[in-house]
Amino acid sequence: MSELKGACVIGQSGGPTSAINASCYGAIKTALGEKNITKVYGMLNGIRGLLDDRLIDMGAEDPEELAYMQYTPSSALGSCRYKLKDSAVDDTDYKRILEIFRKYNIRYFFYNGGNDSMDTCNKISKYMLANGYECRVMGIPKTIDNDLAGTDHCPGYASAAKYIATSLMEVYHDARVYDTGMITVVEIMGRNAGWLTAAAQLACSKGCGPDLIYCPENDFDMDAMLAKVEKIYADQKKCIVAVSEGIHDKNGKYISEYGNDLSNAKDGFGHAQLGGLASYLAGVIKERTGAKVRGIELSLLQRCAAHCASQTDLDESFASGKAAVEYAVAGTTDKMVGFEREYVNGKYVCNIKLFDLTIVANTEKKVPAEWFNADKDGLTDDYLRYALPLIQGETKLPKEDGLPRFVHLKKVLVK
Amino acid sequence: MSELKGACVIGQSGGPTSAINASCYGAIKTALGEKNITKVYGMLNGIRGLLDDRLIDMGAEDPEELAYMQYTPSSALGSCRYKLKDSAVDDTDYKRILEIFRKYNIRYFFYNGGNDSMDTCNKISKYMLANGYECRVMGIPKTIDNDLAGTDHCPGYASAAKYIATSLMEVYHDARVYDTGMITVVEIMGRNAGWLTAAAQLACSKGCGPDLIYCPENDFDMDAMLAKVEKIYADQKKCIVAVSEGIHDKNGKYISEYGNDLSNAKDGFGHAQLGGLASYLAGVIKERTGAKVRGIELSLLQRCAAHCASQTDLDESFASGKAAVEYAVAGTTDKMVGFEREYVNGKYVCNIKLFDLTIVANTEKKVPAEWFNADKDGLTDDYLRYALPLIQGETKLPKEDGLPRFVHLKKVLVK
Repeated sequence: MSELKGACVIGQSGGPTSAINASCYGAIKTALGEKNITKVYGMLNGIRGLLDDRLIDMGAEDPEELAYMQYTPSSALGSCRYKLKDSAVDDTDYKRILEIFRKYNIRYFFYNGGNDSMDTCNKISKYMLANGYECRVMGIPKTIDNDLAGTDHCPGYASAAKYIATSLMEVYHDARVYDTGMITVVEIMGRNAGWLTAAAQLACSKGCGPDLIYCPENDFDMDAMLAKVEKIYADQKKCIVAVSEGIHDKNGKYISEYGNDLSNAKDGFGHAQLGGLASYLAGVIKERTGAKVRGIELSLLQRCAAHCASQTDLDESFASGKAAVEYAVAGTTDKMVGFEREYVNGKYVCNIKLFDLTIVANTEKKVPAEWFNADKDGLTDDYLRYALPLIQGETKLPKEDGLPRFVHLKKVLVK
Repeated sequence: MSELKGACVIGQSGGPTSAINASCYGAIKTALGEKNITKVYGMLNGIRGLLDDRLIDMGAEDPEELAYMQYTPSSALGSCRYKLKDSAVDDTDYKRILEIFRKYNIRYFFYNGGNDSMDTCNKISKYMLANGYECRVMGIPKTIDNDLAGTDHCPGYASAAKYIATSLMEVYHDARVYDTGMITVVEIMGRNAGWLTAAAQLACSKGCGPDLIYCPENDFDMDAMLAKVEKIYADQKKCIVAVSEGIHDKNGKYISEYGNDLSNAKDGFGHAQLGGLASYLAGVIKERTGAKVRGIELSLLQRCAAHCASQTDLDESFASGKAAVEYAVAGTTDKMVGFEREYVNGKYVCNIKLFDLTIVANTEKKVPAEWFNADKDGLTDDYLRYALPLIQGETKLPKEDGLPRFVHLKKVLVK
């Protein structure tokens, strides 16, 4: 183990989740307590903040206030969607990053995000190595999409899954209140991976979930869906369908695109209407069945519903941020912190494991094909065994006046 | 006080809420313990179940299981939307109700719902009185809309308000995560009364609420809204607008109707798209500002989000059901149980008060005009003082496997 003394910088990137601040807080709190880490900086809006020399001093925050970060949704430091070019093609950004690193003697770089963020980590790590600047680079994962390779699951996924399953159980009860017919279509996030939509199966396991669940891992067949809906509706007068936003036909065309084509229509004032997949499918099903159909889009509520977060998720997120700092201080670099599942006496245990950044950055993990039922409109018990341990525990989110108490950072800019 | 021995029947009507089962459970549990109440029947799907002689025996339910009812959203006995005709015009239904009352010796009638349900109570009460059948009739209010006259507030409102404020605080954080521009339009329930949308002001009171709040109490001026949004967006690059589904222009035309006109467009397969107010306004604002605009419809999530219910609301709801039975047994009839607010040493106290059914059935309570700001796009502190005590306390909803444990009734049909 080689000692490395210097400042650290941490940033957040990509879409927000209910747990990304818990992992970030785990890293910040740990870094603030490490003697070899001289300063803890936060990047405002991720790598963009680093490039623009917009860093804040995390040590200037009140420690008690900072602790609220772990229960606050979205990205407290601000996020960005910025992809670094290949340094062999254009190294402008890299030179600038090195300049900033030298200016503040930054020797630890922690980046909190999904696939693209791991790609950023990977590129910076390789560039610094090639240019002889000693800096330890660690990726701290987050994504509600749960699509990062290697790790058993991703921080942030379980909280979104818990919210989705809970909301679907509630919608199930609501949709059954009248003795009249009702079909409900619920649109859930997930462009390429169906993990979030799969969480609908958790509601089914409690006897109050959707009748049909469609994920983007399988080609979506509109006629097959309509035939099933018609039958279920004829039998029960109720039907709930859960769909991933990313479902596509066998030619790869997103079903939502059919809706978008339609949305190009304008009203008398030249206004276009923005519509989603749920409202499009609701229209199609209404035409076919004549039933009352309701489209519900869980929208960004599902990724920021901190009030319904899984405490297991928050605890594991915190642990991942903490581990990233501890491993880096101990000499590790160029890795992503992730999770490995173990069962000790039948009880789920989550262990920290390190993963190679190159692999993580370029692979997308999907729901295994064998976890879908034969008709590809539901999940098997394999999924339930996977997901149930992750959603245990209610968030300890503090309340004030009956409402969430979220963090207020001072964000003191470093001169 | 005259003693009256006989069976009681209880039913639920109108739209579901997170708290209607708490009030219903309060009535059922109390009735099961009253010596003068010989049997406790539930109507399946409200008055429709009574007319169809579809009653269930609440005494046949396991008491421990029944207790889960108070945390379960929607209407556990099933609901209906059925308006009784004026008995002077057509007394068919009334004769049938009297027949059922006689068949089961029903002497207590409890009906759990909103304005229309209080109208049903009122009509049945007056008919039985006119026909010399002794029966005590009590209305137990519920409505997320909070629009019942007389009572300080309605069971169910506070839980929906708490969910709306909480979700808006979370959306606020999510919508600010990037350093790029973003406008968000959130559509909230409320056709004629803006109480639910007013709850957005609770989020503002915590520094993370919408910039603009529009309720149906005031005529909606599209140009004024667009001008404000443009200015806020120019200043902050972010803007959140909360709107009631029932906002209308100065001619009384619902703004959502403009969207509906547009939705009549069909795609190449002849499919129509169902769109809501949020997506329509998002389209209009996008056209005007060129910004990225997102429309979010809280949809029925806001009326069934039991996981985010106010325990104050659930406790008061239970108390209202309990009081209805106790008053009826003690001799009261033809009343709705409601609430009166008192401050004891500055502390909010909710007292039970009885209200005349005739008044309740025919009046709609709106947000007072003086509780809106001058521009009619926000609420004053008067609203906050009104609403804050109601949303206190987190639901004690039991969990199983990290998910809500909702009630499973046997629903044993009475032969």
